[in-house]
Amino acid sequence: MFRSKINRLLKSESPLDKVLVKGWIRTRRDSKSFSFIELNDGSCLENLQIIASDTLENYSQIKNLTTGASISVVGKMMESPGKGQKWELDATDIHVLGLSPENYPLQKKRHNDDFLRTIAHLRPRTNKYGATFRIRSELSFAIHKYFREKDFYYVHTPIITASDCEGAGEMFNITAFDLDNAPKVDGKTDFSMDFFGKEAKLTVSGQLSAEMLALALGNVYTFGPTFRAENSNTRRHAAEFWMVEPEMAFYDLFENMDLAEDFIKSLTSHILSHCSNDIKLFANFVDKNLLSRLEKTMTERFARITYEDAVKIINNSGRTFEYDLSFGKALQAEHERFLTEIYFGGPVIVYHYPKDNSPFYMRLNDDHRTVANMDILLPTVGEIIGGSQREERLDVLVSRMDELGLNQQDYWWYVDSRKFGTAPHSGFGLGFERMMMFLTGISNIRDVIAFPRTPKNIEF
Amino acid sequence: MFRSKINRLLKSESPLDKVLVKGWIRTRRDSKSFSFIELNDGSCLENLQIIASDTLENYSQIKNLTTGASISVVGKMMESPGKGQKWELDATDIHVLGLSPENYPLQKKRHNDDFLRTIAHLRPRTNKYGATFRIRSELSFAIHKYFREKDFYYVHTPIITASDCEGAGEMFNITAFDLDNAPKVDGKTDFSMDFFGKEAKLTVSGQLSAEMLALALGNVYTFGPTFRAENSNTRRHAAEFWMVEPEMAFYDLFENMDLAEDFIKSLTSHILSHCSNDIKLFANFVDKNLLSRLEKTMTERFARITYEDAVKIINNSGRTFEYDLSFGKALQAEHERFLTEIYFGGPVIVYHYPKDNSPFYMRLNDDHRTVANMDILLPTVGEIIGGSQREERLDVLVSRMDELGLNQQDYWWYVDSRKFGTAPHSGFGLGFERMMMFLTGISNIRDVIAFPRTPKNIEF
Repeated sequence: MFRSKINRLLKSESPLDKVLVKGWIRTRRDSKSFSFIELNDGSCLENLQIIASDTLENYSQIKNLTTGASISVVGKMMESPGKGQKWELDATDIHVLGLSPENYPLQKKRHNDDFLRTIAHLRPRTNKYGATFRIRSELSFAIHKYFREKDFYYVHTPIITASDCEGAGEMFNITAFDLDNAPKVDGKTDFSMDFFGKEAKLTVSGQLSAEMLALALGNVYTFGPTFRAENSNTRRHAAEFWMVEPEMAFYDLFENMDLAEDFIKSLTSHILSHCSNDIKLFANFVDKNLLSRLEKTMTERFARITYEDAVKIINNSGRTFEYDLSFGKALQAEHERFLTEIYFGGPVIVYHYPKDNSPFYMRLNDDHRTVANMDILLPTVGEIIGGSQREERLDVLVSRMDELGLNQQDYWWYVDSRKFGTAPHSGFGLGFERMMMFLTGISNIRDVIAFPRTPKNIEF
Repeated sequence: MFRSKINRLLKSESPLDKVLVKGWIRTRRDSKSFSFIELNDGSCLENLQIIASDTLENYSQIKNLTTGASISVVGKMMESPGKGQKWELDATDIHVLGLSPENYPLQKKRHNDDFLRTIAHLRPRTNKYGATFRIRSELSFAIHKYFREKDFYYVHTPIITASDCEGAGEMFNITAFDLDNAPKVDGKTDFSMDFFGKEAKLTVSGQLSAEMLALALGNVYTFGPTFRAENSNTRRHAAEFWMVEPEMAFYDLFENMDLAEDFIKSLTSHILSHCSNDIKLFANFVDKNLLSRLEKTMTERFARITYEDAVKIINNSGRTFEYDLSFGKALQAEHERFLTEIYFGGPVIVYHYPKDNSPFYMRLNDDHRTVANMDILLPTVGEIIGGSQREERLDVLVSRMDELGLNQQDYWWYVDSRKFGTAPHSGFGLGFERMMMFLTGISNIRDVIAFPRTPKNIEF
């Protein structure tokens, strides 16, 4: 007999004579000659109410079932006379698949997020985390759908790399050596004997590789894991996270911004229309301002200002900040929050940052003191996107590399792409988990990743 | 002015007055008062023919353009009087974006795959590799589409892990230590001081984590990179590759097989209908039997035999093999090829392998000597899928772990899932690159990955 999923059953237009469902008991309560079971199968937030009558052969067993137990139910789906649900299932047969002893950690009450992180293997069985991971799935799909409709090709850039995308952050080392017995020459580890024959690291960005593919396929994007070995225990940082990196041949910085803004709007709209029930949970219980913030993001044009104007706005705000700001200094989180949450009250694109401290691949502006880059800041989560037009001029690229002390030979293939049919191109990176936080109001990155990796935390 | 992509233009129903295209020159040849340019922008295999008349202002520059140069062209698209194309572009303006000096490695001739691997940053600009990476993109989309339509949720399982999925293969070590100066205690590396506070590795499979999510969300799948530190230089092995791992609550082994077979058929059919031009290139130039093999895979039911019967068939075949076979021994590549390419002449599902040498998580059959697992073998590529019904019975699982000397505490969360609401469930893993090889006839895994990682090879 074909098993039905609860998300489909609840959308049924008419009663159904005989259905089979399988899932986990959320709650059970007794009436005179019945037991009411709320069954969840993970397909949606909603439960299916099961009516288990005392005429069932194994009713004595059913009466003792507790939260978390898994069962298989055959029954007749009919209109529910009770409140809160359209349909209920009048069970003709209930088969117990797995019990749930009384030390089951997820009893019927609200658990706090700190506790739930310690049982990350079980928390997807709660309403909140079930909703989170369903949204995460749909958001991933929305990304692929968006780019495919625009003829972008999805590319897989290497996770293990020998290049460092010019110091985007601290990197993890990878080795096939037993760390206790790595071969040494003159006290230095002999990487020529290692698996790859040289030092290998976990990627911090697929950009440089994606550029090679954009200069062949036109428009491409990556969507994959990236890594930072930064020992920062904040709510917004994880050692392992997913990033989306589109790279577009023939795009300049402003076309890049247009795409990025449209992308965020489109993802937001997709999730609101495809995950409405799951989003409601967050709007009701996690962040009361969620819907209005998402609505605004979808409909209003993002503010756009140069870094230089941003510095002026902040310095003329009459507010005191912890960090001083003047041309050349980095915008701190406090400055970004002020711009997006207070001054503009919505998303902001800040562009043309100072050349100094910018990576070699960002296109130098004609003023020779700024580069053609941009960051997109969102209320509550801060920087969600960083992007730039890439330096396509061979001579400028090479002199920037020299300036920054980079060895051209390490990047011979990258330099090659500017020698042969170079073309203007641009791209950006979107932090996938930050987008999840923005869409749900969840304030800790650890709660939008099934099994987060952070300093001293590699459990599960 | 809006830039058009060549894939869209070539599908046009009518001439177009003014279009803008940008791309790279594949070839250029001169006629009396014209230059014919074949322009490719990566959006499809086909080029757009550009007619550059000597009346163009910069014709002297255009006449010197060579293969690989990038240009921007405005012109009128009209019916082509020439053979081989429906449309051509009569240029009114050509702007040169990037030259391509004569040492450009991709001249107009066929290059062999070994050479092209040394310029992996440029090979996507060839017909064959452009087609490969477009198919790779569409295959990824087909995977997401397939599962979404069946209400599966996409989950991201950890890449950095402390568990080893029970020795699925040699693993890479990850550390934030400088390998020259890792802190030691009694000559042993002190991992308590490392980033995660314990030994960390690159995942070989997301299965154990995915099981936790399946037991909450019902049906889930992973699609992400996995790693093997195996020093094997074969055509079918890479150190970094992508895997698809669906995991389904309430599925038994045979439902698992049904899904896996349907999945392969559906992916094959999707690629044949959505990438027909790119596939034709492979059918014409790479593998003459490609289309008939794919057709057969889509339409015929996969053979299904037990491991025990497979051993009998092989031993009764009258053929000599390099490796002896008897119950308990592993099927070698030569045996698999015999079964799928000769004996059955098509895909084969081999199931119920011996318990010994099987991982602890495979469900023990009632005969106590075999497990509820299966492999799917495809002609030319061999094993494409491995899967099993998972052991859901707490007592059997624990005794299997003891038998294999595994420490229960290392897997406390996994064991937990059998204590609380355990349920029958199954899953499998499909090697994404193997599927690419099957669909294109490409015989070396290095040629379906943009920048492959293999022993001593981490370039680009």
